[in-house]
Amino acid sequence: MDNAPEVALIWYENQVFSELNRLIEAQKPSKIFFLVDENTHQFCLPYLLQNLGDLPANEVLEVPVGEEAKSAEVLVQLWMALSELEADRQALLINLGGGVVSDLGGFLAGTYLRGLPFVNIPSSLLAMVDASAGGKNGINLSNLKNRVGLFLEPTAVGILPQLLSTLPQRERKSGFAEMLKHGLIADADYWQQCASFPIDEEVPGLDLIQRSIEIKSAITGADYRESGLRKVLNFGHTVGHAIESASLASTRALLHGEAIALGMMAEVYLSMRHHDLNIAQGEEVINRLREIYPEPLPDFNSGELLSIMASDKKNEAGEFRLSLLSEIGQATPNCPLRKEDLLQAIEFLQNGCREEA
Amino acid sequence: MDNAPEVALIWYENQVFSELNRLIEAQKPSKIFFLVDENTHQFCLPYLLQNLGDLPANEVLEVPVGEEAKSAEVLVQLWMALSELEADRQALLINLGGGVVSDLGGFLAGTYLRGLPFVNIPSSLLAMVDASAGGKNGINLSNLKNRVGLFLEPTAVGILPQLLSTLPQRERKSGFAEMLKHGLIADADYWQQCASFPIDEEVPGLDLIQRSIEIKSAITGADYRESGLRKVLNFGHTVGHAIESASLASTRALLHGEAIALGMMAEVYLSMRHHDLNIAQGEEVINRLREIYPEPLPDFNSGELLSIMASDKKNEAGEFRLSLLSEIGQATPNCPLRKEDLLQAIEFLQNGCREEA
Repeated sequence: MDNAPEVALIWYENQVFSELNRLIEAQKPSKIFFLVDENTHQFCLPYLLQNLGDLPANEVLEVPVGEEAKSAEVLVQLWMALSELEADRQALLINLGGGVVSDLGGFLAGTYLRGLPFVNIPSSLLAMVDASAGGKNGINLSNLKNRVGLFLEPTAVGILPQLLSTLPQRERKSGFAEMLKHGLIADADYWQQCASFPIDEEVPGLDLIQRSIEIKSAITGADYRESGLRKVLNFGHTVGHAIESASLASTRALLHGEAIALGMMAEVYLSMRHHDLNIAQGEEVINRLREIYPEPLPDFNSGELLSIMASDKKNEAGEFRLSLLSEIGQATPNCPLRKEDLLQAIEFLQNGCREEA
Repeated sequence: MDNAPEVALIWYENQVFSELNRLIEAQKPSKIFFLVDENTHQFCLPYLLQNLGDLPANEVLEVPVGEEAKSAEVLVQLWMALSELEADRQALLINLGGGVVSDLGGFLAGTYLRGLPFVNIPSSLLAMVDASAGGKNGINLSNLKNRVGLFLEPTAVGILPQLLSTLPQRERKSGFAEMLKHGLIADADYWQQCASFPIDEEVPGLDLIQRSIEIKSAITGADYRESGLRKVLNFGHTVGHAIESASLASTRALLHGEAIALGMMAEVYLSMRHHDLNIAQGEEVINRLREIYPEPLPDFNSGELLSIMASDKKNEAGEFRLSLLSEIGQATPNCPLRKEDLLQAIEFLQNGCREEA
């Protein structure tokens, strides 16, 4: 942690195999552990192993698919598993999966024996553009997301866009929401590029993915511990996380990006009403987001959403603090808002992104 | 973690109250949490609160007395408790207790919301001289000590020798073992001073305590992540930890320092047989240690002790690596030893520190 890098090394495409082999040759891990979920075990691990060739002693740790695996219970099971498999400090952990696997695996690596080296190989679009940079990891406590965790960079992140071809469309669109967000908060041209990309039919190429990672790395590199600037990455997430948390407790769980897309619509609305975002621009953004993500807000209780927002990590001294847009490509962290403002934004979503007459 | 200091600020005696008040005034924590055990709740917290005067909103978190509290189960309960008490990132955690409380509390603070500021106020001699510097924290997994944790310095450590007056003699002698160790590995004069101190009757003063903290800080400051030099602090601990672990599973648990005193006798023996320690010096040290700690090794199975040692974090690639003395006041990390050597050292203890005829 003390000397840990604040920006991880990122490998792209076939470089992943050659650099990972080089790392293994240099560090001579006593054992390699692959953390996977049921899906990546079946669909991604064979591909990775085939391309890596001969490896030293290795073991596979599998967790269930989905957000439920980011729990204290699974974490403790993984600590015990590493212990039983006699992992020592020279072991290497490779997290192969979506954000759940890298969040859980990063925290596992950061805490087992007070820290093992680890490499993340994201298998979803969301994990590539969001979880690959910035060093956040952690687990949920009941329905409170990322309540526990660390800021800790992996030794490296390996981006293999070829893994995306088997990803369901719904998952792909979920990850795409974070790419749209990167455009909205930091790069108007990139927003236009993404907004016109046919995500329903196509898989984004390396150029779009790489730009998203660059934007995120630049922001997190400038403010690693989230004291200020980094909070702009939270755009869409105050409302979006509350929706996601509420949906986890409901019968119809939303994917992260689906909740964030709704959160962004609400927070664009707040950016027009309570910050400098031009109305015409804001409406254009909301319309485009609704075209891509037409699903309405599930029937959640406003009070429940509000109380989840009240427990948001980014609040200070009981006040709501949001990151809002001043224009497309520009965001301001820490905008103070009242409870009433947030209720109005929820109502806006409840009315299908229309203001009450 | 990225910018965390590698040597904590240390406050002594009444400075603890003035500096802690100053810190609270400067940081304006949203809430202060005191982590205590049943004993420090009753015997130390009132004294601390009385000397601190008016405080902002605060809560007390109590854990059971003893090593059992350093468990994943208690950790998860504490995460939940902070969450339920709405601790945000501006909260301050004050760990008031022995090594169990600071180990658990440091890990809690380092991981809740990815990191809260925290201050350690050790209440035992062991915690003052051992747990106060070096930034190690963590929990046990079943009977494997410190299997999970972080390297993370507190914002400050407050040393209040006045808290020691209520400490039972047995606890005091346990902490004293680490002071003797600091002399043996780093300062021959300090070893002589400690070796002649009447620990059965008296409480060590600030001068002796302070020197012990200085020795430990100098070593950990030079090698924070324990890649080499820092391992000298492990002197007495390979054998000692195994004895402690075995005793935790038995009906008669040894205190940490009691186990380490036995571990030091074994490792002084190994230092004479397999490293440069002069025989006469080594025997003198063993005799003095036996006078202070006359309790014999409990009736443990050698094979069990060996298998616990085999899982020690400091081993590399399956080999046993110990820190041994080359002379009094000088230690060498990473001395390779064979299984047979360790079995012989256990036998030496089993025979009351006599070699087999």
